[in-house]
Amino acid sequence: MTASDMVARWSSASAPAGSEFDLIRRFFVGLGVPRPDVLLEIGDDCALLSVPADQSLAVSIDTLVAGTHFLADDDPESVGHKSLAVGLSDLAAMGATPAWATLALTLPRAEVDWIAAFARGFGALANAHGVRLVGGDTTRGHLSITVQVHGLLPADTAVRRGGARPGDRIWVSGTLGDAALALALRQGGGAPPDPWLSARLDRPTPRVALGRALRGLATAMIDLSDGLAADLGHILAASGVGAEIALEALPLSPLVAARIAERRQGADWSLALSSGDDYELCFCAPPGQDAAIRAISAALDCPLTPIGRIHAESGLSLRSPAGAILTLERDGYDHFSCDAA
Amino acid sequence: MTASDMVARWSSASAPAGSEFDLIRRFFVGLGVPRPDVLLEIGDDCALLSVPADQSLAVSIDTLVAGTHFLADDDPESVGHKSLAVGLSDLAAMGATPAWATLALTLPRAEVDWIAAFARGFGALANAHGVRLVGGDTTRGHLSITVQVHGLLPADTAVRRGGARPGDRIWVSGTLGDAALALALRQGGGAPPDPWLSARLDRPTPRVALGRALRGLATAMIDLSDGLAADLGHILAASGVGAEIALEALPLSPLVAARIAERRQGADWSLALSSGDDYELCFCAPPGQDAAIRAISAALDCPLTPIGRIHAESGLSLRSPAGAILTLERDGYDHFSCDAA
Repeated sequence: MTASDMVARWSSASAPAGSEFDLIRRFFVGLGVPRPDVLLEIGDDCALLSVPADQSLAVSIDTLVAGTHFLADDDPESVGHKSLAVGLSDLAAMGATPAWATLALTLPRAEVDWIAAFARGFGALANAHGVRLVGGDTTRGHLSITVQVHGLLPADTAVRRGGARPGDRIWVSGTLGDAALALALRQGGGAPPDPWLSARLDRPTPRVALGRALRGLATAMIDLSDGLAADLGHILAASGVGAEIALEALPLSPLVAARIAERRQGADWSLALSSGDDYELCFCAPPGQDAAIRAISAALDCPLTPIGRIHAESGLSLRSPAGAILTLERDGYDHFSCDAA
Repeated sequence: MTASDMVARWSSASAPAGSEFDLIRRFFVGLGVPRPDVLLEIGDDCALLSVPADQSLAVSIDTLVAGTHFLADDDPESVGHKSLAVGLSDLAAMGATPAWATLALTLPRAEVDWIAAFARGFGALANAHGVRLVGGDTTRGHLSITVQVHGLLPADTAVRRGGARPGDRIWVSGTLGDAALALALRQGGGAPPDPWLSARLDRPTPRVALGRALRGLATAMIDLSDGLAADLGHILAASGVGAEIALEALPLSPLVAARIAERRQGADWSLALSSGDDYELCFCAPPGQDAAIRAISAALDCPLTPIGRIHAESGLSLRSPAGAILTLERDGYDHFSCDAA
């Protein structure tokens, strides 16, 4: 058996006509929004794309593996949504406008119902953001999804991680810790989480319009995929600065706030500080931009909360409601669990 | 456990410093050739790339899964080479010049020696083609490699599949069936294949310079990943034409020719017609271009062989050395095994 017996390369349209993998391919051809800058779509050796002369190309690739990033029996429509949302969140964090996606899908077998639902979830989010699926590859193996997203922006407007300056205010969008609480409740085996909370885990909203609106205002930006402490830590490291954040300022949904309050004696803030998958944006901006940022928040109906300040000394300091301060040095950002009450 | 515990997104530099996955990341940062059109490399939410105003972007994504496309105990340097070569071959088939690659690597564990060798193989081929690795993602799971390649070319010079016209000559580069013979010998359990033959399977040479040289000459082109009959079949379908090829004209290495001759009574041409992984180019051009094509062959030291002609009637006809003709209709191209002597 050669590799080609097991493979349906969409680019080469090599799935035998009528085969299950050919059926799969049909779910993906034409997915998303048609765009005049797609010169050649699925069906040749490559897709051909046109980048305007005044724009740069922003790209990011991410893999979701069944059993690690989602469960094989998770709702496939949500898995389709999330597999694109993760990449769109990276584009948002640069201030880029999404344009195209490619999808490499590895499946144990060709389950048409699963694929159809996956494509619906992927396609709905692609439609919402004007994205066209321009290429892909289907292979047989352990369930795994790799998506590359491609966005456009004037190069000198990209919001990088290294621009935070002492005195900048630190902001986050939305609320923190919802995805982790949903996962904990689901894994806890009790009552399933509230639908709103579940959606925060399964169908994260990439903050694309917000990221774009912050170009020229934010000095540094990142999306919160690994938790606030770790991701803000990347901004601090890249910018050569430190920060202090106030735990009581962290924006929390009532469900997460209640969960943290339950443990008021030695409150466990890790839900808000070190749990991932929220896909909110964290950014820095000089206080002179406060009014502009609040206007953006109102215009986009997107909550934006100031949580602290950048300072010159390295390290991330957490001020507890009682006034105690815990300082994390750089190596502590990543695998962080905090009892700072 | 959240997903982020298991994941090292290079884009977010989220691998804990000193962790095994952080070590892995270090093998990939700076891989390939530095390029002025890479505005922002690994280490932010996205890579930022600059596409010249007169160029279009060609992209292709492919996954290699252990156990299907290679074996988990295959030489990792070869696996690194092949995982990039497959994509570069797609760029070659459009006539595009390779520029950048992204890599999503799923590994069961962080075996540093394996990764180092993989990166050497990937990096050596990237260096040979002026490619920069600009982004990636490392996840834990069943061994699998997804690479997206990005190439550049003036949009109206791309060689697509749909341009073949009656009267065009059909050409192939190199020799056919070597990779499949190497695989058959290896799986047969006998003496290991000759090193040259093994390299044809493990370290295919993407015909990048050839593809670029054929812009403006070839009317249609494809790379041979799934076998001549299937891949030429895609050109015929896209162009709305048919073809006749002469079996005795097919370019064969002495080893493959001997293997086919062994079975002279009912010779099995499937090795040359329907075995994949050769990554040679198949293209069409009017006979008036013969001299130009032979000049390219000489200049690039790349064998190019005319194997047949395009005609208006649909179907692919195979003329055997004895003069018999077998015609394959479109549905027969893909899973084709031929006894046409």
